Amino acid sequence: MNGAEILVKTLIDNNVEVCFANPGPSEIHLVAAIKNSEKIRPVLALVEGVATGAADGYGRMAGKPAITMLHLGVGLMNGSTNLHNAKRAKTPLLNIVGDHPDTHLHYDAPLTTDIRAIAAHTSDCVYRVSNIRTLGSDTARALQATAENNGQVATLILPANVAWEEGAVPASTLPKKQKAQVDEQIVKQVRDAFKKRTRIALLLRDEALKDNGLRRAGKIAEATGARLFSDTFYPRIQRGAGYPMVTRLPYHTEDALAVLKEIDVLILVGAQPPISFFAYPGGSSSSLPATCKVITLSHPHEDGPAALEVLCSLLNVHEGNKGLITKLALPDLPKEGPLTPEGAMRIIGRLLPPQTVICDESISSGLPYYALTAAVQPHDMLQLTGGSIGCMLSASIGAAIACPDRKVLCLVGDGSAMYTIQALWTMARENLDITIVVYSNRNYAFLEQEMELMHVVTKKVKKPPMLYLGDPDLNWIKLSQSMGIEAAQAETTKEFYALFKTAMSGKRPFLIEAMI
Amino acid sequence: MNGAEILVKTLIDNNVEVCFANPGPSEIHLVAAIKNSEKIRPVLALVEGVATGAADGYGRMAGKPAITMLHLGVGLMNGSTNLHNAKRAKTPLLNIVGDHPDTHLHYDAPLTTDIRAIAAHTSDCVYRVSNIRTLGSDTARALQATAENNGQVATLILPANVAWEEGAVPASTLPKKQKAQVDEQIVKQVRDAFKKRTRIALLLRDEALKDNGLRRAGKIAEATGARLFSDTFYPRIQRGAGYPMVTRLPYHTEDALAVLKEIDVLILVGAQPPISFFAYPGGSSSSLPATCKVITLSHPHEDGPAALEVLCSLLNVHEGNKGLITKLALPDLPKEGPLTPEGAMRIIGRLLPPQTVICDESISSGLPYYALTAAVQPHDMLQLTGGSIGCMLSASIGAAIACPDRKVLCLVGDGSAMYTIQALWTMARENLDITIVVYSNRNYAFLEQEMELMHVVTKKVKKPPMLYLGDPDLNWIKLSQSMGIEAAQAETTKEFYALFKTAMSGKRPFLIEAMI
Repeated sequence: MNGAEILVKTLIDNNVEVCFANPGPSEIHLVAAIKNSEKIRPVLALVEGVATGAADGYGRMAGKPAITMLHLGVGLMNGSTNLHNAKRAKTPLLNIVGDHPDTHLHYDAPLTTDIRAIAAHTSDCVYRVSNIRTLGSDTARALQATAENNGQVATLILPANVAWEEGAVPASTLPKKQKAQVDEQIVKQVRDAFKKRTRIALLLRDEALKDNGLRRAGKIAEATGARLFSDTFYPRIQRGAGYPMVTRLPYHTEDALAVLKEIDVLILVGAQPPISFFAYPGGSSSSLPATCKVITLSHPHEDGPAALEVLCSLLNVHEGNKGLITKLALPDLPKEGPLTPEGAMRIIGRLLPPQTVICDESISSGLPYYALTAAVQPHDMLQLTGGSIGCMLSASIGAAIACPDRKVLCLVGDGSAMYTIQALWTMARENLDITIVVYSNRNYAFLEQEMELMHVVTKKVKKPPMLYLGDPDLNWIKLSQSMGIEAAQAETTKEFYALFKTAMSGKRPFLIEAMI
Repeated sequence: MNGAEILVKTLIDNNVEVCFANPGPSEIHLVAAIKNSEKIRPVLALVEGVATGAADGYGRMAGKPAITMLHLGVGLMNGSTNLHNAKRAKTPLLNIVGDHPDTHLHYDAPLTTDIRAIAAHTSDCVYRVSNIRTLGSDTARALQATAENNGQVATLILPANVAWEEGAVPASTLPKKQKAQVDEQIVKQVRDAFKKRTRIALLLRDEALKDNGLRRAGKIAEATGARLFSDTFYPRIQRGAGYPMVTRLPYHTEDALAVLKEIDVLILVGAQPPISFFAYPGGSSSSLPATCKVITLSHPHEDGPAALEVLCSLLNVHEGNKGLITKLALPDLPKEGPLTPEGAMRIIGRLLPPQTVICDESISSGLPYYALTAAVQPHDMLQLTGGSIGCMLSASIGAAIACPDRKVLCLVGDGSAMYTIQALWTMARENLDITIVVYSNRNYAFLEQEMELMHVVTKKVKKPPMLYLGDPDLNWIKLSQSMGIEAAQAETTKEFYALFKTAMSGKRPFLIEAMI
């Protein structure tokens, strides 16, 4: 077996089933090994940002590592921003990146880059395989690393000569490492805080927004009157009927400060103290009022759900499905007339099928209406964690491949969608059950808001051309069709209702341009 | 004046007229300062790769630095591969990248990255402005740096607080630094090589492929019988009638070795010794036969044209327009029938208007037919220098803005074009005189060739899905129209001839899908 074949065998032995890829000549042996294995589904992306964004979505939903294959340092660069988002999401993700052989590197051929240094920006750990004999075990180790600390991005650099050499040695599968446990003394401190009957809230993130972690938090909230918060931008939450009510912290620092003024003690479960996304002249970087004390129950790398279990037991919170939303509360439908972001969200909340995965990058069009979907059918929601727009359209691909029996709904602004618009083609090729709602306001509306927040004024009435997406308007119907996806436009609530309803009953990719 | 205003004033004082941008909140004061100045043309790109690619094209053609404005480290990451290409092209280019204020950085907000380290991969020099009082002079220095060493990529990192603070100090304009001159002893060595009447060739790059440098090389070739070569991938060449005949070194190492076997001494003028693009099992990284001696007349950072002038004088080569192609030799038209890459190139060569700027990323569809356009109307040709595909569609934007009176022709493979397809929208918005020929073979044809070169075989007859661009086929007409550009498809030589002729007489962006 050559190196590429051993690498692919190691992936298969570790239960890898999908590879999101845009390969080049340096990865051609891997392409052949994956094809010949017939056990890994190769998903081609037309640009690497789509591959890494898809991997992010897959890793967040699949409960196992997502794999990308990227061409040299330039492929890694093209995929870097969505890896930045994935790293901030603690997504388990392994990049396999080809490199020139060492013998070729010192010629400084045009595609030569320092891949290790490039990978370091967006990876928790980087491995470069220099020896065919350790390739298998290096691969197993890199896969193991993706599961550590509640999820990491790892990069494995494979020089082309190691891929084509014969004599590779198969590797044993490595066990998942145990999660770091929270010291009981810490949990007792938190318990004591509850006993003081102060106004308490839990700020939940990562594992504490899912499954048992989330349910335990719900029970504690019900038993103690504590509130549950999430960050504005979290990797994933389970939400709606059957889950606890979790309030999303507002995006604007002043709004977040106002919410947290009502809290005396904020317990962090996998989260960091809340901060402002950007800095503003004279503004505060912290979103934490001076009156609010912070206690860290679990750090991001620790086992938050286990700590919550201990806390439940210390607080004598034991029984059943307490603290969960038991009744659907669907939003009222909007009045007939022109479509608005709020109207669209009401219709979405109303018609959302159970177990939908929502990949949300609607930003200015979605954030204000988040609460409307608090108690709709149970669903997962993924947010943009690293702030680099152009993620969720691609993440939808990965979510749909990880969850083939669930509807995926991508809510995305027109500006965001254009960043990795090539994602549409991969959705069509893989025939994925994804509905895309593009909020078409022909604007970087979010930037306009930020301009106001910064008290920046420009001379003329006409919009600054750098913030304005029109001229020419994008034709979303043609754009979508050009990559093989059916699409339609909704200008009124009635049209949006009809289109969204049809989309929810379909099984193929479909794009709705929501004219807002 | 605030920091942003001083920065923009410094740009204007240094004759900057265009900024290729995709800003975010951290750059909002720059957006306002540029708009309010009314002297810099802001060109919005829907993704940063388009902005940096456009800047590369602009810098190669404008004879002055190209400017980008990018949003934080993630914007820089998105634009990194085309900066990699620009750095390999020695394009004078200044990136202005916003950053969080220092006071905000240590909160590790979602968009926090190590911008200086990210910039280092693709920049020759990186400046981070930390003080409002030095902002003006730092900007002037960064601009000056872009002209050094025959062209450099510089990055200026501007924390948002420095942009919004008042109290900035205007800067003096800095002079262009003198170019490094070649020692006359070196030129004499080269002269001596000519005297030995061996088989000599000059390998020209950068300034030696343009203007006086190129003309001097032509005279030397005519007088001495030396051959003139260029690299396979050079930043820019002036070519066709009125310029010397320069042979492009073949892409494949074996072919390059065969060509250079006929040469005893290879004189490098701004070039490096020729090497293989990729490594192959058992293959050579050097494209230089052991029998071929190399002498460096000028290093890439040195003044090659001046060295050629000294060489002319040492060789007693003085008079007029010697060694230039004096007669047009247009290729024969192809036979009627289905369009082929060769047929397309014959028609292009036949109908090319004088002074066209060709941005070439046709790769497998263009390379074999390069010689067909050797003696057509005078034109400039730009190539992909860094090997990272997805450059030339965007570079066309910059070339068209730098040369508003010249036709720009982008020759691009379908796979390449999809990397930064968002470039079409910017072409439409700026209403640029660009004709795009997309070679539509629904394939990464180049990768298929590489697979053969690597002797890699896959099990089944069906193409590996990672190399195959069909399923679904892209609809280039709709794709183009969706972003505001007229388009048409040519399946036969007759159709291509008609469309290309129409396009050459127009003044607006137009896309031809060449079905090959």
